[in-house]
Amino acid sequence: MSNTRILVIGAVACGAKAASRIRRLNPCAEITMIDQGKYISYAGCGLPYHISGKVRDIEDLVRTTYGKIRDSEYFMDLKGIRVLTGTRAESIDRESRIVTINHIETGMTETLEYDRLVLATGASPAPIPVEGADLEGIYNLTTMEDAAAIAELVRDNPGGKAVIIGGGFIGVEAAEALGMKRWEVTMLERCDQLFPGALDFEIAAMIQEHLFEHMIEPDFNTDVVRFTGESGRVTGVVTDRKEYPADLVIIAAGVRPNTGIAVDAGLKTGETGALIVNERMQTSDPDIYAGGDLVENTHIVTGKSCYVPLGSTANKHGRVIADNICGIESRFPGIQATFVCKVFDYAVGSTGLTEKQAVDQGLDAWAVSAPGFDKAHYYPDSQIVALKLIIENGTDRLLGLQAVGKGDVARRIDVAATAIRMGATIDSLADLDLAYAPPFSQALDVFITLINVAKNRRAQMFIPVTALETKRMLMEDDDVILLDVRSKIEYRRAHIDDPKVLNIPLDELNSRMSEIPGDKKILCACLLGLRGFTAQRILQGAGFKDVYTIEGGMFLWPWKEELE
Amino acid sequence: MSNTRILVIGAVACGAKAASRIRRLNPCAEITMIDQGKYISYAGCGLPYHISGKVRDIEDLVRTTYGKIRDSEYFMDLKGIRVLTGTRAESIDRESRIVTINHIETGMTETLEYDRLVLATGASPAPIPVEGADLEGIYNLTTMEDAAAIAELVRDNPGGKAVIIGGGFIGVEAAEALGMKRWEVTMLERCDQLFPGALDFEIAAMIQEHLFEHMIEPDFNTDVVRFTGESGRVTGVVTDRKEYPADLVIIAAGVRPNTGIAVDAGLKTGETGALIVNERMQTSDPDIYAGGDLVENTHIVTGKSCYVPLGSTANKHGRVIADNICGIESRFPGIQATFVCKVFDYAVGSTGLTEKQAVDQGLDAWAVSAPGFDKAHYYPDSQIVALKLIIENGTDRLLGLQAVGKGDVARRIDVAATAIRMGATIDSLADLDLAYAPPFSQALDVFITLINVAKNRRAQMFIPVTALETKRMLMEDDDVILLDVRSKIEYRRAHIDDPKVLNIPLDELNSRMSEIPGDKKILCACLLGLRGFTAQRILQGAGFKDVYTIEGGMFLWPWKEELE
Repeated sequence: MSNTRILVIGAVACGAKAASRIRRLNPCAEITMIDQGKYISYAGCGLPYHISGKVRDIEDLVRTTYGKIRDSEYFMDLKGIRVLTGTRAESIDRESRIVTINHIETGMTETLEYDRLVLATGASPAPIPVEGADLEGIYNLTTMEDAAAIAELVRDNPGGKAVIIGGGFIGVEAAEALGMKRWEVTMLERCDQLFPGALDFEIAAMIQEHLFEHMIEPDFNTDVVRFTGESGRVTGVVTDRKEYPADLVIIAAGVRPNTGIAVDAGLKTGETGALIVNERMQTSDPDIYAGGDLVENTHIVTGKSCYVPLGSTANKHGRVIADNICGIESRFPGIQATFVCKVFDYAVGSTGLTEKQAVDQGLDAWAVSAPGFDKAHYYPDSQIVALKLIIENGTDRLLGLQAVGKGDVARRIDVAATAIRMGATIDSLADLDLAYAPPFSQALDVFITLINVAKNRRAQMFIPVTALETKRMLMEDDDVILLDVRSKIEYRRAHIDDPKVLNIPLDELNSRMSEIPGDKKILCACLLGLRGFTAQRILQGAGFKDVYTIEGGMFLWPWKEELE
Repeated sequence: MSNTRILVIGAVACGAKAASRIRRLNPCAEITMIDQGKYISYAGCGLPYHISGKVRDIEDLVRTTYGKIRDSEYFMDLKGIRVLTGTRAESIDRESRIVTINHIETGMTETLEYDRLVLATGASPAPIPVEGADLEGIYNLTTMEDAAAIAELVRDNPGGKAVIIGGGFIGVEAAEALGMKRWEVTMLERCDQLFPGALDFEIAAMIQEHLFEHMIEPDFNTDVVRFTGESGRVTGVVTDRKEYPADLVIIAAGVRPNTGIAVDAGLKTGETGALIVNERMQTSDPDIYAGGDLVENTHIVTGKSCYVPLGSTANKHGRVIADNICGIESRFPGIQATFVCKVFDYAVGSTGLTEKQAVDQGLDAWAVSAPGFDKAHYYPDSQIVALKLIIENGTDRLLGLQAVGKGDVARRIDVAATAIRMGATIDSLADLDLAYAPPFSQALDVFITLINVAKNRRAQMFIPVTALETKRMLMEDDDVILLDVRSKIEYRRAHIDDPKVLNIPLDELNSRMSEIPGDKKILCACLLGLRGFTAQRILQGAGFKDVYTIEGGMFLWPWKEELE
């Protein structure tokens, strides 16, 4: 059976990667790649940065590191790969191994034979099927054309108003881009938090708070009812509660895999709705491979199927597909849903499961949080990052890490991503020999501190209480004291406004211990957590029985707007 | 046997950490910590940054994150730990468990009983025992007093001349600090490269090149013969070849563990000269624990003892010591010699073994290098980092990673450090789900690209040749062509000046293949490596037999000053 005629449908991340790698592996293969768009091999994840102006020339998103435009000519001259743009695949005849294609501009139809077929048709934005959805000024943000049009509109209308539908990472990146252009931005989200399903509530709340600082206000638990317009252009978004004026609407409410042609050919999709592939990236037809946003993946932590379309994964898929087509045994084990997102001065990211996901999956899990400095705290520009670790009870296996703050988030996410992939437990990580110098981390990196906090909790030395539980107790429980052990200055700057709050700076704790009622629940708090924990231990040592530390301290307190 | 009287000798990183943790574990313990210095619990690694002015107030190096000075009063008030500064431990009577101490100012002697003793006496700079070594203006850079005196001298003498003896990371950090203050700096190093023993030649050469750009010139293979002076102040350094004028000399030629009191008490030292401890950090006397710069460690990769004194390790030691003293089973498995160092706009770091170390240790190892962008290459401020990976032949286990460049070095070092600790092979890492967004990495992180390069090499698809070997061949071998496939503009900007060099941009390679002699060795080069590799594959596909790719491309070419 010959495998020299390779047909690739879709020429962006996965498809372009697969074709390029096949060429390097097999100089004689006859490789054809088709794409319905005009632009191929473009950096889709870079689109928001063209809107913000960080990537001034949109063609930079199709340029190589050395400045060449990745167009059909580039693929032919450098790689000997034939590329047909503006060309749609209409159907697959699996028996005869023939794909019927349609040249969109001319309407002409043609057939292409293949020995091996690669499906990389990607995903399309989920539509919002309400009145006015076809008005001008309503965009997605998935193509070069989208980004170019939005960037032009923003440039021509300074001080405009935008409504972004969807609070996931594309929505947030779009909000940042428009915020940087001083547009007024409203975000509409059906769930009750940003990054729904991808971050725990209190981590997402940090981003929400930071967006507030940039005048971007999300509206939660809200549904779009219709779009209003004038002369065919959008002028507003009507929700189930309110109406927002809008010069621009960006729909970023998730994507759906483009499975049409595959399903028509009888290839199997999974429960997620995306195409099923095995570890070799083969569909239910072994001569047809698929990857990228079209397929579902195995989640490494749960072992279950999931649909998490990401550019990084698509590129890895492309390589595995090429290897297997060219006879190199190669497997793609799965994903951990790792992501990172820049939001003005903040970054936020996650790898593995969130606490909520772990619980929803029926795992017996617990979590600890620890904010800390990303560099030596005395080094200029050192910033705080807050980490939240999810651990499986019993096995002590890491299930996930979330990180948020102005500090270096990506480094800690990547360390955890590596540890999770290797099946690490908290015991194998406390002594991790990470890179230390004052411009890069504290002597004990904040990730190591977090592991130590987890070990303290497991040993029942550290008795945490979450912010959510604290808030509930302050409202409902009369026998509670919130002991804030920060300095007077820190306390005065911002503190929880409640008669149950008592401020005794840590260094006065021993001498003022008589002020603390022995018959109440004591919840110790500081800024980051260490002083609170120290206070908890001092009070326990002094005979107090019911003492807790508020996890993540005031830094991770989710209701900053209520502070006094 | 009681363990409530704890005596800690040495109150900086390991000692202070151990004492603080013991207090949190045991509110009743009687903890005494002594130190011969005035400052305790100071951030020794931050000293160079006081000289550069990045840490303006030197007391910031003894402040907590919330601004408290960590002095004797702080340890007493917050932790109930008694601290005696200006106090030297004279001797240990192990039988009676008594330490004799000496109050340096008064000369008074006293004895202290202990149940458990913690030795954290650190290390002292290796002296340079030549004429003039006692002149004023010759400093080490290990104490607060050193840093304060150097900072004052630098401030009072703008445009002065400094000689730094030692090209390791303290020497380089000192050079950066003085360079930032616009002093003229000369570095003297006995070996033939910077970071001797800690980085491979071509990685260290990148830092050397960057120091050149800041007018800092290292002088290699050189020994100090004597110091010259006037009126008791240093004025110059005489080496075996040359004389350098100097208003300031900083000796950073390594440190030696302060084992005196431990050896006198009969505790065992190892081949490295440092104190031996077991995994629980116990010395040969189970009631005496030791950690920090005083002790040797097990190298995780080789399993052998090594002496790598680092602040991060010292802090981990302190915690393990405290746990074991307080009855919590805790082990310190060892170190990987991970480090990172900022050098002006560059950073450089390493974890595990270098290629030279691996060879010296008798391991069967091979290496691959790959420079790549640290962010999406189209994102503003994206920078190149060059990575070098050391792999064990046969097992495919990661032995080490080095990284250098203007890009984010620490993140890739930390990922590799985690992978090495977990015993990863190259096969478990190509699909690592690392955090991706354009402001943080390429779709395939440069570390994943590096792993793929390693796999390509193992599959004998990628046939590398090192820069060193290339240079030798250009000089000695007539049957060699260096094929530079960069664009004409890139080539013109800087290229290797040799008649054997031929420039054919990659996109012209197919049409100009007849210019390449079929009977010669072809060494393909580009900037980063991918185009060179593509050219290698194209030429192999066209029937050329003897084709190689120059590893690391022109970016890692170590002799940049010879380029045309």
